[in-house]
Formats: sequence, structure tokens, C-alpha cells
Amino acid sequence: MKGLSVVGIGSTTFGKHKTTTIIELAKQAAEKAIFDAGIDREQIGTLYIGNFISGPLNGQEVLAGIIADSLGLGEISATKVEGACASGGIAFRHACMAVASGLTEYSLAIGVEKMAHASGKEVTSALNFAMDKDTDGKAGLTFPSLYGMAWNSHSKKYGTTRSQVSAVVKKNKCAGLKNPLAQMGLNLTENEIFNSRLIASPIRLFDCCPVSDGAAAAIITTNKNAKHATNPISVLASVQTSGTPRISSSNDLASFAATISASNQAFQLAGISRKDISLVELHDCFSIAEIIDIEDLGLIKRGDAGPWTTEGRTNINGDLPINPSGGLISKGHPVGATGVGQIYEVCKQLRGDHPNQVPDAKIGLTHNLGGCGIACAISILANPNA
Amino acid sequence: MKGLSVVGIGSTTFGKHKTTTIIELAKQAAEKAIFDAGIDREQIGTLYIGNFISGPLNGQEVLAGIIADSLGLGEISATKVEGACASGGIAFRHACMAVASGLTEYSLAIGVEKMAHASGKEVTSALNFAMDKDTDGKAGLTFPSLYGMAWNSHSKKYGTTRSQVSAVVKKNKCAGLKNPLAQMGLNLTENEIFNSRLIASPIRLFDCCPVSDGAAAAIITTNKNAKHATNPISVLASVQTSGTPRISSSNDLASFAATISASNQAFQLAGISRKDISLVELHDCFSIAEIIDIEDLGLIKRGDAGPWTTEGRTNINGDLPINPSGGLISKGHPVGATGVGQIYEVCKQLRGDHPNQVPDAKIGLTHNLGGCGIACAISILANPNA
Repeated sequence: MKGLSVVGIGSTTFGKHKTTTIIELAKQAAEKAIFDAGIDREQIGTLYIGNFISGPLNGQEVLAGIIADSLGLGEISATKVEGACASGGIAFRHACMAVASGLTEYSLAIGVEKMAHASGKEVTSALNFAMDKDTDGKAGLTFPSLYGMAWNSHSKKYGTTRSQVSAVVKKNKCAGLKNPLAQMGLNLTENEIFNSRLIASPIRLFDCCPVSDGAAAAIITTNKNAKHATNPISVLASVQTSGTPRISSSNDLASFAATISASNQAFQLAGISRKDISLVELHDCFSIAEIIDIEDLGLIKRGDAGPWTTEGRTNINGDLPINPSGGLISKGHPVGATGVGQIYEVCKQLRGDHPNQVPDAKIGLTHNLGGCGIACAISILANPNA
Repeated sequence: MKGLSVVGIGSTTFGKHKTTTIIELAKQAAEKAIFDAGIDREQIGTLYIGNFISGPLNGQEVLAGIIADSLGLGEISATKVEGACASGGIAFRHACMAVASGLTEYSLAIGVEKMAHASGKEVTSALNFAMDKDTDGKAGLTFPSLYGMAWNSHSKKYGTTRSQVSAVVKKNKCAGLKNPLAQMGLNLTENEIFNSRLIASPIRLFDCCPVSDGAAAAIITTNKNAKHATNPISVLASVQTSGTPRISSSNDLASFAATISASNQAFQLAGISRKDISLVELHDCFSIAEIIDIEDLGLIKRGDAGPWTTEGRTNINGDLPINPSGGLISKGHPVGATGVGQIYEVCKQLRGDHPNQVPDAKIGLTHNLGGCGIACAISILANPNA
């Protein structure tokens, strides 16, 4: 899967879109991406939709066909892919595969979710579909409790403190203030984070990403076609792995095997080293996840992600900027949209056109993780002129 | 997408599997396919799951990751694809794409659904997720009523009679009697069909496929690897299209544009003519659908499918055997499983190993249609030695 570029990106804001349907959200993001690419929509030969729970929360499946029709894309192949919270990253990878295999010259990936209209109980119940219901589900677990256990394990192994995890929250909530797409930019003190409502010990309210609506889109083509594009970004790698579906069969609660495997594959495919990465958008569904993910990606040594964060080394101007978009915690997490939203953010950075611009951004990595590590999609993108 | 073969197939029975989970169903079909292929599971590099409504009916998503884990497939990419009732055909096509693009040597496609445990109301509500909820859904339509409208339109245009449609039911229910996988083989008289309960005029109970549980699996590899297989079947084409998501924007209620487009693409890709087809497994979710599908596929002239059926020309020993498995009406329709189940049936035929064996079967076509024509997957398979 070589020789690919992203030539168009688009996104809605992430947040609450009370009067906009899920189809309309996807359409808005896609229309922006088509305009950004400067292509005719007739050139798009394949559509992939990343979505997780439109069925239970919106009573609407076959999103791919409905969205293809609403965009006037004709009788092209249109497929919804699902891998829990990694659905968006999987959609992007499949759109890349369609071009790489020669099936089409241009393909469109859209990630979309609409969930903020549903009650807390409905959302929690639907999110739990990402768990193995016969084991973790039966044990009464929810995702905050799973990540609470991961936190406890990481603390025990590496001495990670509440203060270090709060530094993730502070950094990401603050980054969201300047990202016009973000749902929940905030200036928080450590006390405000520590005193926020306890959800599943040690996880508190501000450790959790919000419930969000939103959509993001990307158009992929060959490097050859990309020569005619205004702002092409090269795709160095796009990989997908699966991991353990249940916490009871995990060897290490403070790590996700699917991330480690996908990261190794992605760097090998891209032919670059971890030191070449300018910035990362990763899956901080809970604050502790950012610390675990950085270490699983092999970007910082085990146990060092906490200290790096408190020292500001993962800030926008730090040694290794992590989630300059604000991440899931601050930008929001419309589940199926998140993976494509990360592609959007990294492309903006590599174009030098981001409100939280990382200086001299040349290569960016996106990391999208489903469930408690059951599915992972990682892409590495680069500015072709840098 | 050339040079591919199916080297392993497996299936559960279609019907009611009260004590078997959806994961277990998928696993049973896949284990049979792996055994049939005679390969080590470590050789499988990609998994695709076709499933439509496991979320609302089983409270379980991320099926691909859970099934990959249950089969011991390691950290391979595992993806659920969804296109309503065409989900299985789409999974098979994607498994073909993964091999054709060189991403893996062997890929596994599984179709699976578990729905018979749910109440009629729950099933109808979940099936309606395949409709555009903002138009057809709001109008109070259900799939029996949509196909009832299609029937009325076909009758008006071509004079199709109740008796002709009953001939479809008789043929398929009868074929199911000899298929050990079939849920509902029956010897029915025309009177029994006509006197069955009215569901949505003119559709009666025996015109409808039953609600089913089941799974089917297929293993795809290169023709080169297939040389070492016992019973390889060549994949001449596997295509996927999308069509109109709502009946109000359909130009012709007695036809599905997605089928016409997919059929033309498939025959062009396969490089064969329609006369070369030995048998067809098509999407008879309702009896009238078989008549419409045959004509949309271009296999029989418009308006002639009814007369052909009453004349027995679509019987197992007829000019063009249609649904020798019993079809959805008789074999059952575990939604996500159906498309892969059709691949299973056609492979058995082309191996010369089917309980309803079509004489001299050389080339078979599968046709899997979602919603009211929103997604279509067609594959053409051939005996490589014929």
C-alpha cells in the first residue's frame, strides 16, 4: 500500500448537533473534503463509512448507501466498516486500500457518529456493545471502569501519579480552546480536575472524553494524481490490527497489544524511525489512555510518559507534541468520526495550517483504538515537500 | 481483482440456534472452512465479517475482533462490513480484495446473524434500520410492504400473476427439503400458499423468508496457492454497487438499479456471457424478488421470469436453475450470513457435491441485495477444470 496521498479533508465541529441528522453531518464533512480536493464528485469511485452505533442510537444502518446517494456519487461501491472506536481509522485505511489496489483513482472516507441526543443510559448501553458481553459485560464492567483498572495497573507498575494524569487533562483541554472544531476547550486547574465528580475510581469527570456528534472526511488518491492537488499529504503507512477483546485475557492491563503490533507494522511500512515523528494524534478516550498509548507506540520509554507530560515535553511546542487538536478529551469523541478526524488534524498540521500549529511539522501519526484494545488503526502521514 | 480462488467453505445450518451465541455460530462455520481448506489458521492474514444487526439484537458489536480472537487468528486486521442484507456478499468481496491487493495470501470471510431469539417486533424494528428512516421509514413502510408494491408494479407492467409467484415459492420450498442446511423445506400446494396469512397485500406468509440464525464462511487465496487445494473454485468476478436508498426516488418499482449495474460489471469483469451461467443463487427475500432479480440480472427477458418459473425452466434440472439451495425463502435468511451462504452453495454445486446437484454445473452466480436495492454484491464462480 504505497504511493498514496490525501488530497482533500473536511470536518464538522465536534459537539452537539441537535437539529442535524447523521446523514447531514456526514454530507457536510464530505462536501468540504470534495471542495478542498478540487475534484469532481464523479471521480470518486469508492466510499467507506466509519460508524459504530448508528443502529441503536439513530435507528439507521446502511449509512454508506444513504450517504453515497445524498452526495450524488452514483452506483459506486459504498461500505460501512465497524471496529468500535477504531471505525474511522479503519474506514480511512480501506479507502487507501481501494486506491492502492487499483480499483479506483479516488476514494472517500467518512467517519460519522450522532450520539449526544441519547440519554446517558442509552449511550452507555450502546458503547458497551464494544465489549465482549459474555465476559467483561457479564462482569458489569463499563469503559470508565476498564480504564480505571488500566490506570491502577500503570500506577502500580510505573508510579504514575494523579498529578501526571491531570497534566494530560490540562494540556488537552487547553489545546481545545484554540481548535474551532473542539467541543470542550477549558482552562482547568489541577484542583478543578481533582475535585470533579468521581466516575470509576480513579477516573473523574474531566478524565473522560465527552459524548459527541460529528463527522470528518478525507479523499485519497495516487501520488500521481496528487501532483495536481493544492495541498497533498503523503500516506506513508496505514495499518490495522486486532487485540484481545476482554480484559480477563489481557496479560498487561497497562498496555494494549494491538497498538504495539500496529505501531511496529506502521513504522516498518513507512520506512522511518520513531524519532522522525513531528506530532501525534492519539486515542485519549480517557486521560490515562494518552500515557499508555504513547508508551505502547514506542515513542517514549515505559513509565516516562507521565513525567514527560508534567514537564511539558508533549505540549505543542515540546519535544513530541501529543494531541495538539485537544484530543478526544477536549475535541470530543463522536465515535465513528474520531479516526478520520485525526487524519484531518494531522493533514492540517502538515499543511502548516493548524490553529495549534506544531513548529516544523513534517511527519504525523494517528492512532485510533477500539474497545479495550480490540481493534487498532494507525496511519503515518508526511508533508511531501518537507 | 483477478487470479483468486475459494479453497475452503463451511456453514452452520440456517434456522433456530437457541443455545448458540453469535460468536459460536461464526466460529463453527469458520472452523469448517479452515478444515475444508486444509490450511493452518496462521496462514490467514485478514478477516471480514458480514453482519447487519448484531448490535440491537445481541448487544454485541466489534464482532470481527471477538471472532478473530475466538478462532486464535492473532493480531490480524479484522473488520466488520455492513450493507444491510448484502453484508455477507460485501464481506466476501472484501476478503477477495485483501488477497488481490497482495495484503495477505489467505483471507477469511464470515457472514453471521442471530435474530430468531428476538420478538417479531424487535426483528421488524431492527430490519427497518436498512430503510431510509427519514423518508420510507417515516411513511410507515416495512420490507413486506415495499416488496408488495414491487409485486403490484411488476404485475401491472408484465402481467405477472399470483400463480407465477406461487411457482417460485413451490420450487424453493421444495428444494429446501433436500438441503440439510435449510430451515424450511416444505411441499406446498398452490392453495396452501394462496391461503396463507396475508402479510402486506399481495404478499402472504409463504412469500416471505423466515427469521433465521446462521453463519457461513469462505477462505480465499491466489490461484497459485489454490493449486495445492483439494477442491478450488475460481472467482471470476466479485463486484459491489449501491442503489437508491428509498422507494420514493426509484424510477421503477419493478427493478433494482444496483442489481443491473452490478450484473453488467460482473459479466464484463468475468469475461463471460450470460449464457455461460449454469446456476444462480439469488436474493429471494420475498418470492416476487426472485422474478425481479432474474430479470435485473439480464438472465431472462423482462416479464418472462414468471412464465419460465411456471414452466419449470428455473428448476434444478431446467434451462437455468435458480436457487437450487432453496433460496432465502426456504433455506432461511440470517441476514449477514446470506451472501456468504450463497458462495457456499455455489461452491458445493461447482464441486459437484450438492444435495440438489445441477447437472454439469460449470459457472455459478451469487446475487445478494440489501434494503430495497441500496446495496448489491454479485460474484461469479467457476470450476477451474470445467
